This record gives sequence, structure tokens and C-alpha cells, in this order.
Amino acid sequence: MSHNTFGHLFRVTTWGESHGPALGCVVDGCPPGIRFTLKDIQDELDKRKPGQSRFVTQRREPDEVKVLSGVITDEDGETLISTGTPISMMIENVDQRSKDYGEIARQYRPGHADYAYDVKYGLRDHRGGGRSSARETASRVAAGAIARKIVPGLVVRGALVSMGVKSIDRANWDWDFIGSAENPFFTPDAGSVQVFADYLDGIRKSGSSVGAVIEIVAEGVPAGLGAPIYAKLDQDIASNLMSINAVKGVEIGNGFEAARISGEENADEMRMGNDGQPIFLSNNAGGILGGISTGQDVIARFAVKPTSSILTPRKSIDKDGKDVDVMTKGRHDPCVGIRAVPIGEAMVACAIADHYLRHRGQTGR
Amino acid sequence: MSHNTFGHLFRVTTWGESHGPALGCVVDGCPPGIRFTLKDIQDELDKRKPGQSRFVTQRREPDEVKVLSGVITDEDGETLISTGTPISMMIENVDQRSKDYGEIARQYRPGHADYAYDVKYGLRDHRGGGRSSARETASRVAAGAIARKIVPGLVVRGALVSMGVKSIDRANWDWDFIGSAENPFFTPDAGSVQVFADYLDGIRKSGSSVGAVIEIVAEGVPAGLGAPIYAKLDQDIASNLMSINAVKGVEIGNGFEAARISGEENADEMRMGNDGQPIFLSNNAGGILGGISTGQDVIARFAVKPTSSILTPRKSIDKDGKDVDVMTKGRHDPCVGIRAVPIGEAMVACAIADHYLRHRGQTGR
Amino acid sequence: MSHNTFGHLFRVTTWGESHGPALGCVVDGCPPGIRFTLKDIQDELDKRKPGQSRFVTQRREPDEVKVLSGVITDEDGETLISTGTPISMMIENVDQRSKDYGEIARQYRPGHADYAYDVKYGLRDHRGGGRSSARETASRVAAGAIARKIVPGLVVRGALVSMGVKSIDRANWDWDFIGSAENPFFTPDAGSVQVFADYLDGIRKSGSSVGAVIEIVAEGVPAGLGAPIYAKLDQDIASNLMSINAVKGVEIGNGFEAARISGEENADEMRMGNDGQPIFLSNNAGGILGGISTGQDVIARFAVKPTSSILTPRKSIDKDGKDVDVMTKGRHDPCVGIRAVPIGEAMVACAIADHYLRHRGQTGR
Amino acid sequence: MSHNTFGHLFRVTTWGESHGPALGCVVDGCPPGIRFTLKDIQDELDKRKPGQSRFVTQRREPDEVKVLSGVITDEDGETLISTGTPISMMIENVDQRSKDYGEIARQYRPGHADYAYDVKYGLRDHRGGGRSSARETASRVAAGAIARKIVPGLVVRGALVSMGVKSIDRANWDWDFIGSAENPFFTPDAGSVQVFADYLDGIRKSGSSVGAVIEIVAEGVPAGLGAPIYAKLDQDIASNLMSINAVKGVEIGNGFEAARISGEENADEMRMGNDGQPIFLSNNAGGILGGISTGQDVIARFAVKPTSSILTPRKSIDKDGKDVDVMTKGRHDPCVGIRAVPIGEAMVACAIADHYLRHRGQTGR
Repeated sequence: MSHNTFGHLFRVTTWGESHGPALGCVVDGCPPGIRFTLKDIQDELDKRKPGQSRFVTQRREPDEVKVLSGVITDEDGETLISTGTPISMMIENVDQRSKDYGEIARQYRPGHADYAYDVKYGLRDHRGGGRSSARETASRVAAGAIARKIVPGLVVRGALVSMGVKSIDRANWDWDFIGSAENPFFTPDAGSVQVFADYLDGIRKSGSSVGAVIEIVAEGVPAGLGAPIYAKLDQDIASNLMSINAVKGVEIGNGFEAARISGEENADEMRMGNDGQPIFLSNNAGGILGGISTGQDVIARFAVKPTSSILTPRKSIDKDGKDVDVMTKGRHDPCVGIRAVPIGEAMVACAIADHYLRHRGQTGR
Repeated sequence: MSHNTFGHLFRVTTWGESHGPALGCVVDGCPPGIRFTLKDIQDELDKRKPGQSRFVTQRREPDEVKVLSGVITDEDGETLISTGTPISMMIENVDQRSKDYGEIARQYRPGHADYAYDVKYGLRDHRGGGRSSARETASRVAAGAIARKIVPGLVVRGALVSMGVKSIDRANWDWDFIGSAENPFFTPDAGSVQVFADYLDGIRKSGSSVGAVIEIVAEGVPAGLGAPIYAKLDQDIASNLMSINAVKGVEIGNGFEAARISGEENADEMRMGNDGQPIFLSNNAGGILGGISTGQDVIARFAVKPTSSILTPRKSIDKDGKDVDVMTKGRHDPCVGIRAVPIGEAMVACAIADHYLRHRGQTGR
Repeated sequence: MSHNTFGHLFRVTTWGESHGPALGCVVDGCPPGIRFTLKDIQDELDKRKPGQSRFVTQRREPDEVKVLSGVITDEDGETLISTGTPISMMIENVDQRSKDYGEIARQYRPGHADYAYDVKYGLRDHRGGGRSSARETASRVAAGAIARKIVPGLVVRGALVSMGVKSIDRANWDWDFIGSAENPFFTPDAGSVQVFADYLDGIRKSGSSVGAVIEIVAEGVPAGLGAPIYAKLDQDIASNLMSINAVKGVEIGNGFEAARISGEENADEMRMGNDGQPIFLSNNAGGILGGISTGQDVIARFAVKPTSSILTPRKSIDKDGKDVDVMTKGRHDPCVGIRAVPIGEAMVACAIADHYLRHRGQTGR
Repeated sequence: MSHNTFGHLFRVTTWGESHGPALGCVVDGCPPGIRFTLKDIQDELDKRKPGQSRFVTQRREPDEVKVLSGVITDEDGETLISTGTPISMMIENVDQRSKDYGEIARQYRPGHADYAYDVKYGLRDHRGGGRSSARETASRVAAGAIARKIVPGLVVRGALVSMGVKSIDRANWDWDFIGSAENPFFTPDAGSVQVFADYLDGIRKSGSSVGAVIEIVAEGVPAGLGAPIYAKLDQDIASNLMSINAVKGVEIGNGFEAARISGEENADEMRMGNDGQPIFLSNNAGGILGGISTGQDVIARFAVKPTSSILTPRKSIDKDGKDVDVMTKGRHDPCVGIRAVPIGEAMVACAIADHYLRHRGQTGR
């Protein structure tokens, strides 16, 4: 990954800030003949607006994606077919009114990248979050929608498994519940909805915020993707997830828990299945051994920090080096981690698609 | 990171297996005029043989590094000066006797990459761990020794902060204790030595193994390194650390803890210092905001799983698809995480050196 | 250079076909604080419509560029200032009416990439030239307009030095004449205009076509850019120029002539100048020795083949494997090489800007 | 291509100077299961010592290659089989005695990279040619020997087609003659040997030097390799050839000649062959259309300048900025282009192998 491009054969370059006229991405290296519809992409994008609930700040943006290149339209007039050339996708920013940023433009909000931007670049676009805006993630989700089509049989799904100090009960895990209209949290545990709702209402009313942990599961990943120590599949998944805003930690399989248990408990035993395929008796490894997929589900988790945009005044400094107290005004998003679920799915899908092509390139399989 | 090369301007390509004639790396992109000695590199390599203790398998290998290119020798006859061309370093494997691998060559050891290698490549070098061998990490440490010289004032140090279910007391943190002769664990807490020793003796005697968590702290990282969302400094550190064998999780700053606490608690407040430099009142961010270093200490942690080479028989299969029970014979290393400390330091140093050059390239600062 | 991205620190990714809704590029890695106007870019783009002459097919396309990201607007309301984040530029295709391609869509035009596309991808967008369209080069020119701003004092200019069997008289070289309204050919020799005009009229009337040789001269290139054998400045210039459609050869300095003359004649002698800077007594090397710029003018030439779209029937086959005779209908461009001048300038400017940043990254100078 | 690595999936990183202890390369991304012998590589390396003739400076170096990693040995004890991990190859420099470079170390030889190195890096290894040494090309030839094995049916051969003002008669082209013991020039025209010998004797005796043009022909290149405008096969071949020392120009197919002839003459017509494969009636395109191979022979030519190491004093300056006259002493090589033939073959083979894997990655074919 370098600059604003990630992936080696399936390559995604994203561009755009929240307050410019548009943002988008270029997907380069997509195989020819991949079929998808605008709706496939739009459905993924719409997942980023879960539940129309009171728990997520409502943007007015339609987030309507346009495909500008790299495809021809099939005879049905709807299906797009990739030609093997770069696929450019764009989402226009409908509402670019610059609100009055006034003094906030000169203040460094604690926990935000304001200060780091200024030190690095010497100037910045103080409108919205610049490149760090949550809107940028739409590009990732659009690219991920195409990545999902490349590996036959691949299914990548995500779930919120904890929010602040509250966690789901894994015994209740139900993938089907995630898309439910009564589920504003991407939780796979129906029993957790009320718990999360009450908890987050309290957070919201107190003007505070809270983080979350997201789990991504990829089924149908062929064995053999990745490489022993560099270009490990888990490494590239970790890199992709760490590139998401506000992510502070990544785990593969049982992750940090592996450091606490014994070698006997941790190593996944194998037996031969009736179909001539090996069966793993557990999946602590998260589907990856020595950097290479084993055919088990690939499992990754990542931690999203609480947003620093809170209603409590916080100590900071401004551009002139003066001490100031900074407070976010207006609506705020008490748990930005909720939205991170489809983004995490997209980033994992992109990593797997890239390694699928790389493996095919090196081995012909 | 692609294939066996990592870094963008400070680029490291490693090669070699544990049972070939040698292993090594090529460091490309090193600035000209960097001064170092063979001893600088050797000292780092020797850190991987801590304490000559009973807790770490003793190799007979001297791990003596040779510098084959990319330097001239200063008039003192000892100091090497980089010329700006690729620096090739090699470590010969003195003891290449192939022991009798016999049936183990046909069996897939649970928790090892044996099966994944065979599925990916269709063949493998069954002697030792192939590329996944711990010996490969010598290349990283050698490259890291040069990376440390590139950023003026940079100090990168690591410590083992937990082993299995035992953790250090952070109140006792003492960097100077880590190099002490009485410290076979890279622990910064003198009080933990006896605890770890007793614990690991039990693990070793029972033929079991245990994992560890390592913390790396980089001081003297200039503010401004990294980029907002891709090529984030934390992302590249995470990628580098995840490329180390047996690593299953990575955190930056307070990491997964950030997902549990509130926005007020998590965001690091700022005040103006007397020297005209900002002071952060805490460092939950681990020295990185929005992917860019802030000038605070950069802090990362990673989890190393317990080795799967244990003396207890484990269920597995062999190449012919037959069910077998696999048991590691001979000596084993009860906690491979101990050795991971200097490797983690090296990988963080390489990431920082690379971003230092990239930042200088883009901004001229 | 990989896929549709070129450059290492100053990176350009282009996308778009001639018959889609738009085309464009993403410029990644631009230093922050670079100042330019839309007019700067548009002026370069307009150079690709030289002279409104009868010698160049007239498109109706305005080729109006939009800058979608990566800049803020200065207080004058016109000057754009790069922020250091990706600069996305887009040019909409006004006229996308698909004319009736009918049988031509099934025929392989000799000398075109039709057959190669079908073999590679198994399908193609038969409207226009796909990615090989001359319109794609607008992206390069737009990126080049920014590249020109990065290296202080850099001036990159190009000239057509031969067309088919006709060549300029170098004794008459006058850079100022190139922009003249009476010069539809980018020739630096006023005396050649009538010669080229008569020659090309003949070519055009006979339904034939002819190639050209273009020379690019970069003044103000600092000494020290490039690298000894890979990442040579001349190599990256050659690669960039060879990526232009229809280019079949590239030379640096005296190029192929160097293979014909003796070592004494070829090596450029040096003397010390009064200003303490070395003076080269000739410039056969084209400003590059051992892959590294010397401070002399950097000089490159490239050969553009005659377009294969001619009015004479030519033998070919179609998708069904039947022998056919193919003839281009309608207007055609008798010398596509004319338009290649500003494209060549842009590609050389991009290579130099990239190496300027890379050199600064490695050496700090 | 970046720094000292070239290729995208078949990646070669070279290291080493002429006067260090060794030089070599790391071949990364080689498919597993590729079979070759040390002799395969050594035979290619030995081609660089053609004819033991008086026309080429004799090094005492055996240039014996060692393969240090990435292979297992087959049961025959000789055949090496790639494992898919990095293949490290090394050639030790037997004779490292540093002769007395004395004043030459402070003088800038005209036409050499001495001055450019000093400006770029601020220091250099003045022994031998540093990275620009002809010895470095051994690494390329070794890598090329492996590249040749990757594409089934690929044959890459080269020939010297002109030397100074003398050219071969193409009517006499005989590939088999090139390996003949009576052929010290890699010429495919037996009739040219005496002409070249007399010509070069004159050059040698006068203490002068002369350049050459080399042609590389690759047979058995599958149709479909490359990409439309960036990552064009011809572009990457050009880049690879331009990375060779002393190369000043590159052509594909008829190259610069294409700029002189008409569109009718230039475009290669097609007819359907009896075997269901298209037949091209000519090959002006050099086997590449729109950046993609067509299945015809791929043809490239490159121009090598005369060495600047000549026995005639030449004007120059030294490090202190003083005017000096520089003269090479001792033996010299009157036509370095002769040795460039196997190097050119290797670089073309590497480009084709890389694109073969990339094409397979993207399309699965």
C-alpha cells in the first residue's frame, strides 16, 4: 500500500474530501468479464446508513454512485461487464455549502488529525475532515462491491460485537438478523439491541461518545491465498483495516487471546473429512496459517475508537499557539463504529480479491 | 508491501530459508552518508539470543552478518558509510546438516503452515520452517539496525509486557533493566522476572507453550510522518508487525482499550509548552493522529501466539490424507514471543525510516 | 509503472475511454502548497488542438477540465493550492452518441489493437479506441501541467523534428515559433511549415498517413536526479514516452547516433565555468550520465508511427475468423504525431517531477 | 520499476558493485515447480565471455553463480526446483585487489557517471564503476535464465546487427551461427565477421571505441500479454533495456523507421491461417499492438554507446573544480556493445515472464 492506492493486482486508488464537489475511486486490475449492477454497489453504499435510527447522524447525501469507465453494458441494459480497464466510480457531494467554520478552523480539536495535518502539510482544508472524512469510505465500499464479485463463492460479512463496555452474546449469533429493520447496530445478537440502545442513549444524552469492535468473517476463501511472511493474507487484511479512520487495533482469529492460552489449546487440530477435504476441529487461527489461507473462514476484528467530537469542552491549542477550550457543536455521532461494519467488509473483500489474483498469477491455479 | 519486499523508499527485500546455505536481505533506498559499524548490526542480532537462559532454545549458529555491497569503509577502517546503492547483507547457516525429518516431512503439524504451504505451492522445503523460520527474522533485525541510523534522534525500544496469563506491573517500568544480565525475558519490570521464570518453567516441563505480548516504543519520531488514510504510519507499522511469524494481533496506543472508554477519556488534550511546542496531556493515541505522527512517542503492541511445537500428541493428517497423531520431538521453545522483541523493534524502525524519507520527498522537510 | 499508474512519489493514475461519460486522472503525492490555476491546465490541454488547421481532425469536445479534490482555493478565488492529498481531475465527454459501428465492431483493423484486446480480455468496448484513444492523453497533459510546477525553474518544451521523410533544419530552431498561429505542426523551423503542409496535403488527399519524430527538451533539471542503473532518469523518461499510443522508439541525447560514432566524438568533455559550475562542451548524453541528470538540458526523442486508419482497403480477419477487407471511413488524421508534442512534454515533466521528489526523499537535497 | 527492483510479479532486485566481495540478485515471485540447473544459469553467464577473443577485455573472474535460497534439489541431485519463495543468487568477486586509483579517483572521466554520482550522493565508491559496472549485469543474466523457464515455449535470442558504421546483411541471418566458435561478435551474419574484426582492430589500435546496435527476438510469446497504454509490453521491454548501462535508444519492431513510412506500408495485414490462427503478413509492429502481444515474434533493438574509456586524453575537471586532462590507462574494451547481447536477452525474458504472470493473474488464462 502506498499513498492513496492499495492492492497489488486488484488496485484501488481513492480521492476526494468531504467538502469538495465529489469523491471517488479508480479500481485498476479488475479481471475482464466481471458482471455487476449499479444496484449491487448502491446496496453496499446504502448499508452505511443503517436503520435511519436516532443513533447515527443523518446526512442528506444520497451517495449515488456513477460508473464512469471500464465497463460495457450487457444487452439487458442493466448489467455492467468489466472490460479489464480501470473502473472509475464517482459520488457527487450534493451539499457543499460551507458552514461557518470560524474559529474551529484555527483550533486543533483534541483527538482529531487537525494538528497532525498542519504539521505535515503546512496547510489543510479545514472544511469537514478532509481526507479523514467518513465520506471517503464510500469509495472503499464501492470498490469492495466489485471485489466481492471476483472470487467465486466468496461471502464477506461483518458484525458489531461490542460497543463500549457492552458485548454481544455469541451464542445468539444470527447473520440474518443483521439486515433486519429492527437492528440499527449491525449486531448479530437480537438480544443485544435493547442493551446497546439504552447504553447509547445514555452516551448520546451526556454528549459523550463510545467505540466499538467489529468482526468480519469471509467464507469461501480458497486455500492457498497469501504468502509465508511478507504479503501474508492476514497482514494485508490488517493493513487494509488499519487504514480505516479511527481504527486502533486489529486481530486475526483469536488474536490477543492467543497470547494468553497454551499451545495445545491454540493449535487447530485436523482430521480428514469424508469428502477428501481436511477438516479443522477449531478455528483459532482465523483461517490463516503462516500467512496463507487454509480454506477455513477468515476472521478478523478491529477496534474503533470513540469519536473525539463530543459536547464537553476539552483543552487544546490553536494555530497561533494559544491555549483554548474546544467543544463540538451541533449533532454528533455517539458511536462511529456502527458505520464501520460495511467498510470493514469492503476492505477485507478487497484484500482477498487481490490475493486471489496474485495467487493465480504466481501459480496458475 | 508486496511479495518479499517491504517499504516504499527505504525498501527491504529478504530471502532465505533456515536450512539453505545462507539467508539475508537487500536494503534499497538507504540515504548516502549513513554511518554504522558491523558491530551496530551484530549487537542487534545478538539481542535475539537473550540471557543464554534455559528459557530459549540454543542454536549453535553464530549469526555473523556480512555486508556485501552499498558501503565504503571510512579511514578508521571500521565505520561503514552507505553510498546510496543497495546494501546487501548475508548470514551464513553454519549448521546445515539435514536431520532425519522422516515421517514429519509428510505430516501436517497442527498450527503450523505445513498444510497451507502444500496447498499453495504444491511442494515445499520440509526442512525446518522454510521461510517461516525464526532465522529469517535475522534479516529484519539487520535491516532495522540501519533504519535506526536514518532518523536523527530516533530511539526504538521494545519490552515484553505479558506472557500467557502473567503481566508486568507498569509502575515498575525501567528501560535500563531490559538489557540486564539477570533478565532473560526483555521485561521492563524487575519484579516480574521470578514470576515469569516460575511460570515458564512449569510450561516447559509440561511440554506446553505460551504466547506473549510485546510493546514497542519509538521516541524521537518527528511530527508529520505518515498520511491521512492510506499509507498511515500506524497502518504501516501494523503491517510490518503482522508480517512477523506467529503474530495474531496489533494495537496502536491504547488499542482495543479505546473501544471500551468514552470520547472524553480517550482524546488526548493539548496545551502549549514553554518551548513553543505543544504538550499532549496523555498519549492514548500512541503518537499518531489521523495516520500522522504528532511528535509524541509512537507506541505499538503485538500478540505472539504460543508455538505449536509441543510435546503433546495432536490430531492431524498427512500428505496422503490419512489421519495421524503428530508430536514434536526434542527440545522446544516454550515462549517464542521472547525473541520477538528485537524483531518488533526492527520492524517499527523500518516503518519510521521509510516514512521519514517519504515525508521528506513529498514536503522537502 | 504498473497497470494504469505511473510514477513512484509523484503518481498518476488515469482512467476512461473515449466513449464513456468522462475520463480523467488522479495525481497522488503532489507536494502541498503547489500553486496553479485551472487556466494553467487548460492551456496545456488546448495545445492538443493546434492551429485549428486542416491537418488535424477536429473534435467538437471542449476538453474542459474539472479539479475535484486535493486543492483549496486561494483568496484571489482563482489560484488553486495543493493540499498534499490526491488531486482528481475529470474531463467530461460531451458527445457520446454512439455512431453505428456495425460491422467494424466485428472486424480487426490492421495495425490497431482490436485483435490484441480481444485475445487479452475476451471482450472489448468497440466504440472508439477504448483506452488506446487519443482522448486518454488529455489526462496525461493535465497531470503534466501540475508536474511542471513542482520543480523550480523547470521548463519542458517539445517540437516536431520530422514528419515522414521530411525533416526540419536544426539551424533554424526557434522555440518561440512553436506557439505561433501560423504553425500547425509544432515545428521549431519556420522554413519547414510550407514543406510539411505540402507534404501532408498530399498524404491526406491520397487517403494515406504518415508518422513523426518528436523531440522534448527539459531545461532547469537539477543535477543528481535518477539512479545508476534501475530507476535511471532516462529509463523512466523512455518508459513514460513508450506508454504513449503509437510510439515505437525512444532515444536519449544523440540516441542511436551514439552507436555510430567513436568514443572520442561521443563523450562530452567538461571544463570549469567561471561561476564554479562545470560546463559541458557538448551534450551528446542528453543531460543524463549513468542514469543521473548532470544539470545539462535533458533531451529525448520518440517516433510515432503513422495511424492505421487510412482510406485504402486492407486485408484482415473478423471475429468469426473470416478474411475481410477493412477500410476506415469518414475523416481521418493524416499525422497523429502532431498532437503527440504536448503529450510528450507532459510525460517527461511527470518523470522529472517524480525523480525530483525521490531524490529529495533519499538525500534530503 | 523502482530503485533496484524491476518487475511486478516476477521481481528482480539486484545488488553489488564490481569491487565489493560479491554481487547478486533476489528473484521474487517465481512460480513454484520451475525446474532448472546451475548449468542453465552458468551457460547464460558464460555467454558474456564470448570467443575468448582479442576484442573483449578478459576478466579473470570465473563468475560462478551460487543459488542460496528458494529451491529444493530433485532426486537427481542436479535439478533445482523453485519453491515459490525468493531465489537468491550470488557471484563472488574473486579478485578484489584494489589497484591504485590515485588521481583517477578525484577526476571526472568524460562520458562516465563519476560526476553525476558525486552530485547525487555526495560520495561514491571510486573503485571500478560502482553500480554502473558491467559486472552487475551478471545478476540480470542469472535472473533471465530463470525467466526463460517460466513461459512454456519461449525462446529469446539476440544478435549484434551493427557496430559503429558497419552493419550486417540481414539476408544472411542465421541464428545458429551466433553460438559458433568463430563468432566473437554475436553476429548472425557469417559474412560480417571479417568486416567487424578488421573494423574493430582499427578502433582498438587507435585507442578509440565504438558502439553497437543489438536486436532481441522473442519467439513463442503468447498473444495477450501487456496492457493498452500503461504497463504496455513494449514499454516494459523498453524500460528494461534502457536500464542497461550505456544504452541510449530503444526501438520496437521497425521502430524509428515507422515514422518514415506510410500507414499502408506500416500496418501489418492479417489473414486466417489453416490452423484457425491468424497469420500476419508482415511484422512491422514487432509483435505488439496497442501494448499487447499478438502472438508474432516480439522484436526490440537497442543502441549501446561507445565506452568513454579511451586512450586519448580528454578535457575534464576534478573534484576540486580544477581543469584536468583525463586518459584511461591499461587495457580497454573497444566495443562494450558486444557483451550486451546476452544482457538484452535476459532483460526481455524478464519482461515477458513478468507479463505472463500478470496476464494470468488478471484473466486466469
